[in-house]
Amino acid sequence: MQLGMIGLGRMGANIVRRIMRDGHTAVAYDTNADTVKQLSDDGAAGAESLEDFVAKLDKPRVAWVMIPAGITDKVVEQLAELLDEDDIIINGGNSNYREDFDRAAALAERGIHYLDVGTSGGVWGLDRGYCLMIGGSDEAFAHCEPLFASIAPGVGDIDRTPGRKGDPAPEEQGYLHCGPAGSGHFVKMVHNGIEYGMMAAYAEGLNVLHKANAGKKEKTHSAEETPLDQPQYYQYDIDIAKVSEVWRRGSVVASWLLDLTAGALNGNPNLDGIAGRVSDSGEGRWTIKAGIDEGVPTPVLAASLFARFSSRGEAVYADKLLSAMRQAFGGHVELPTGE
Amino acid sequence: MQLGMIGLGRMGANIVRRIMRDGHTAVAYDTNADTVKQLSDDGAAGAESLEDFVAKLDKPRVAWVMIPAGITDKVVEQLAELLDEDDIIINGGNSNYREDFDRAAALAERGIHYLDVGTSGGVWGLDRGYCLMIGGSDEAFAHCEPLFASIAPGVGDIDRTPGRKGDPAPEEQGYLHCGPAGSGHFVKMVHNGIEYGMMAAYAEGLNVLHKANAGKKEKTHSAEETPLDQPQYYQYDIDIAKVSEVWRRGSVVASWLLDLTAGALNGNPNLDGIAGRVSDSGEGRWTIKAGIDEGVPTPVLAASLFARFSSRGEAVYADKLLSAMRQAFGGHVELPTGE
Amino acid sequence: MQLGMIGLGRMGANIVRRIMRDGHTAVAYDTNADTVKQLSDDGAAGAESLEDFVAKLDKPRVAWVMIPAGITDKVVEQLAELLDEDDIIINGGNSNYREDFDRAAALAERGIHYLDVGTSGGVWGLDRGYCLMIGGSDEAFAHCEPLFASIAPGVGDIDRTPGRKGDPAPEEQGYLHCGPAGSGHFVKMVHNGIEYGMMAAYAEGLNVLHKANAGKKEKTHSAEETPLDQPQYYQYDIDIAKVSEVWRRGSVVASWLLDLTAGALNGNPNLDGIAGRVSDSGEGRWTIKAGIDEGVPTPVLAASLFARFSSRGEAVYADKLLSAMRQAFGGHVELPTGE
Amino acid sequence: MQLGMIGLGRMGANIVRRIMRDGHTAVAYDTNADTVKQLSDDGAAGAESLEDFVAKLDKPRVAWVMIPAGITDKVVEQLAELLDEDDIIINGGNSNYREDFDRAAALAERGIHYLDVGTSGGVWGLDRGYCLMIGGSDEAFAHCEPLFASIAPGVGDIDRTPGRKGDPAPEEQGYLHCGPAGSGHFVKMVHNGIEYGMMAAYAEGLNVLHKANAGKKEKTHSAEETPLDQPQYYQYDIDIAKVSEVWRRGSVVASWLLDLTAGALNGNPNLDGIAGRVSDSGEGRWTIKAGIDEGVPTPVLAASLFARFSSRGEAVYADKLLSAMRQAFGGHVELPTGE
Repeated sequence: MQLGMIGLGRMGANIVRRIMRDGHTAVAYDTNADTVKQLSDDGAAGAESLEDFVAKLDKPRVAWVMIPAGITDKVVEQLAELLDEDDIIINGGNSNYREDFDRAAALAERGIHYLDVGTSGGVWGLDRGYCLMIGGSDEAFAHCEPLFASIAPGVGDIDRTPGRKGDPAPEEQGYLHCGPAGSGHFVKMVHNGIEYGMMAAYAEGLNVLHKANAGKKEKTHSAEETPLDQPQYYQYDIDIAKVSEVWRRGSVVASWLLDLTAGALNGNPNLDGIAGRVSDSGEGRWTIKAGIDEGVPTPVLAASLFARFSSRGEAVYADKLLSAMRQAFGGHVELPTGE
Repeated sequence: MQLGMIGLGRMGANIVRRIMRDGHTAVAYDTNADTVKQLSDDGAAGAESLEDFVAKLDKPRVAWVMIPAGITDKVVEQLAELLDEDDIIINGGNSNYREDFDRAAALAERGIHYLDVGTSGGVWGLDRGYCLMIGGSDEAFAHCEPLFASIAPGVGDIDRTPGRKGDPAPEEQGYLHCGPAGSGHFVKMVHNGIEYGMMAAYAEGLNVLHKANAGKKEKTHSAEETPLDQPQYYQYDIDIAKVSEVWRRGSVVASWLLDLTAGALNGNPNLDGIAGRVSDSGEGRWTIKAGIDEGVPTPVLAASLFARFSSRGEAVYADKLLSAMRQAFGGHVELPTGE
Repeated sequence: MQLGMIGLGRMGANIVRRIMRDGHTAVAYDTNADTVKQLSDDGAAGAESLEDFVAKLDKPRVAWVMIPAGITDKVVEQLAELLDEDDIIINGGNSNYREDFDRAAALAERGIHYLDVGTSGGVWGLDRGYCLMIGGSDEAFAHCEPLFASIAPGVGDIDRTPGRKGDPAPEEQGYLHCGPAGSGHFVKMVHNGIEYGMMAAYAEGLNVLHKANAGKKEKTHSAEETPLDQPQYYQYDIDIAKVSEVWRRGSVVASWLLDLTAGALNGNPNLDGIAGRVSDSGEGRWTIKAGIDEGVPTPVLAASLFARFSSRGEAVYADKLLSAMRQAFGGHVELPTGE
Repeated sequence: MQLGMIGLGRMGANIVRRIMRDGHTAVAYDTNADTVKQLSDDGAAGAESLEDFVAKLDKPRVAWVMIPAGITDKVVEQLAELLDEDDIIINGGNSNYREDFDRAAALAERGIHYLDVGTSGGVWGLDRGYCLMIGGSDEAFAHCEPLFASIAPGVGDIDRTPGRKGDPAPEEQGYLHCGPAGSGHFVKMVHNGIEYGMMAAYAEGLNVLHKANAGKKEKTHSAEETPLDQPQYYQYDIDIAKVSEVWRRGSVVASWLLDLTAGALNGNPNLDGIAGRVSDSGEGRWTIKAGIDEGVPTPVLAASLFARFSSRGEAVYADKLLSAMRQAFGGHVELPTGE
């Protein structure tokens, strides 16, 4: 079947390429004409404008929007103006699920279907496939399911979950209709929240290994800094790159994130050129907020988000207050930078 | 080559079986004669006593001790009494690395080698192989390496880390000589600390999904409980079992722990028969303590440990204090149990 | 001057009593006629209806609304219908500052002033006075300042902050004009967030003291539970009530919350009759959300909020998942309840 | 009665001065002869050596040691060599309670008594008095109680805890015999752990207020950074110094730490000259470790300790790993420093 794609960045372009491999056709549009040209060369029908894009799509049209969350509202609105009843808009970007919920209701009044599709897979999806978490009506999902099946990884060579029988369910092929409007991005939001927590678990643990030689450093004694107790137990120079590699086979902490970590450390064991200012793109924040609304404790996920904030210097004012208080009650003076 | 195994529980017995598959021979001993019998039936030489066990081993003897941490000290001591210079004791249990460090030094004075081997793989190791993190002298490691290669998973069908070349390194086969005495269990300790964090990340995220229908519940308004803001955004009934399944393919959070979670939820979607009292077997505690000694922040790992403590009721006294304070300053009265 | 009060609960009634002690007059209204009667007996002019309430106020009217956040919107709307230009509505309840921001803008269009007043002091304010955090226009604040000065504690016998000179500033008397609409409740929100963190700090620390005799309990050894290391160091039976008392004088952790804790423990050392289900009334949640929006890390405040959620059983599903995972990879079975 | 003091730093010297105000006599010793001279001028008997110090004390001698934890062991050992049976050593420094426990047992074999005294009060104790948490035998405590009563703040003008009757108990005067050897420093350790948590609660909350104007900053939109949602709600310029002042009267978060914070901010509103590298002197670390040993969750106390570690750059390696992972799965590039 046919898919229209607006937004030909890394993910949008690769989704188009992946469905064309499976025999589907595509209409591709982007404000950057070069990327349209590239997709045309790869076999898609390039569009010169939003109007051209809509005109080239067969009815009921399926238009996938894959653009930064900040401009999604505007583009969806422009697109909706050009669409007809029964057409389908798919939002595959990293939107807040609340916007999907509101947007779907507004579009439904005009007879336009809306699917929100959380898309995981990063830069690797062209070959690995994308994990798809889909929200919206049953009809719209059913109409687009052949596309989702092509975009998703498929069953692949991953062991079947014990107890599952019969034909592989959609979730065994890497795509899932999670529920009504917003539920796709809700599940994707939580996915990313978990991702933050897992990443922090690895990073903290590897940091403990990294400093396993703390006992080798001579420390001057002072009332301001507690000396390392029993330094004989902290004399290890652990090769972090090798450790992340060995855990990939047979261990309980094996994962794709660990595979990537092993790769990053193998190429750059000292992490040269990386400052450690860790961005966050919203889903982690929204996950904690959703947990708070629901009354669900998320200490690990929150700690991983806050560590990112701190990595960007956002705790400095609080730290200054702590030093000011210590000075006030104990006359403590800050030590100079150590490392 | 030959391996002696003391302790034929799930892991000890399966390690013996796994090396015999590879052509090695084994002497097996346990205080439970039945388990010795089973291993004998599988091809090992059964020992009737520790003395018998030692007598049946070729020199230099390789004796693997795989027993609960609480009795390791005693058994190692008894064993060492019977061994000769140049023999090797391997401790594969979940010991605190500090005990290994001390024990290795004590045994070295008697000419006995000691290797501490962190062993991950749980109940699945017979077929999947065990990930091995090894501490001790170069000589002892070199002598035992053929055994480790058999116990470890081997290269398998896991994609090679980009940038690695030539013959697969030991860490690519699933075993690693991490450094001197204690370093094997140090790395295993951190491995388990990370495991706690990852598990908690999944559990917290899935709990947020589990309560995604919080808006459906009518809540009575009171000054004691804040009502759910904008309940229209919390109307989703998410199928957690399907979500854990769909994430197994193509997503960033794919991992072996997720595979197991999908399996657990598929067989028992409501987690019937599970109370939620989560044990901890020490390594998580030691990891946090090591981080504290090193001055390394581990907020995520610590939060995951504390959640386990709380799951066992260890926060109740603190909670009572909070309610008592609220009553004292605000006259707040506790609400009856809701759910 | 004159104050109108709508909502004669514990705080509303005591604010009225406190200003009348200072020579101000009051009009009092509540849907509960009994409480109106009580205030009338104490010297206020009782109102029988909202209309009567408005009629009894001199222009420009000052109407303080002190009711649960859930019904504030409705009552303010009804009240505003009856007011004239230049009248002033004060919201002293625990509203989300965002509602104040929006409400003030809507009322401003009708020429009605609006002040949001965060009010701390709990059940003790009649005698101690209330700490007031005020948001809104300069004019409205200036008009009402005599009332705020009466409601606030005043300078009292608290040591003056070193470096402060001249006449005591309003903040030294216990009330502060924090900024435009919403800022009063913003500051009160953060106040409560801090309160959560301080309360949790005491509760956690006292719990560590409470279990300082952990070494006295015989524990059975099992692979499921790590035994207490070096039990000789945990043989203390600490008298928590006495400790909370001794810290009240001279220590760095002295505070009003500690005074209240000492009182609660003195009367009820075992905290009998308290279950430990800790409510939260919204401000803690909003503080974390505000921190997330601002990118400010609040690990301590968030941990204290999550501990409250957990005290109400909201982590149980997550805990069950953890046990299910442990069973899946390690065959671990849950231990029976201990304590 | 008579007190011998070894270590005439800020706290040691002021304790001597405080007891002399009450009519007690003192022998003072320090390796720094200048400080001995100063105390002699103030009325103490100065000692020129440890031998001289011991010679000048009446039997049974009471020798208070107030020196850095790192050298306490050595000095106590030297001192004990010179003492006789029934003499009393008091350790008032910030020792780990485990050392007290071991040291008391060793000294008891020689008939020497040992008291561990946790001492809170910082640089303010000369006038305010010191809060004393005391561990050791009943006899030694009883012998020294007159000294403790002088050093402690006394009842003062703090309101009596409701329900307490009769003569003020020792804990109402600011000193408490907590239990056997080690219990004094155990309680002081937890005191400091709580102090960390309270300080962090204030610091985090004030940081949220500090950034309440986040909505005023123009942010460029990018996929790497989530834009501030609803910036209209973050337009407040809050005067943090005034807020910390207003909370001192009538609010639930009033405390001595807040008094000090108000003072620090009043003198230096921008916290100029403070870098925000927050030291820790051991007790916080030991509190978390004790909680872990006991199985008691301390999420707030641990988070406050970890924030101090992070303030000193100890999370940077972990942060680099996070950025490396993000780059690996998503091609995400670090943003340049913002603020």
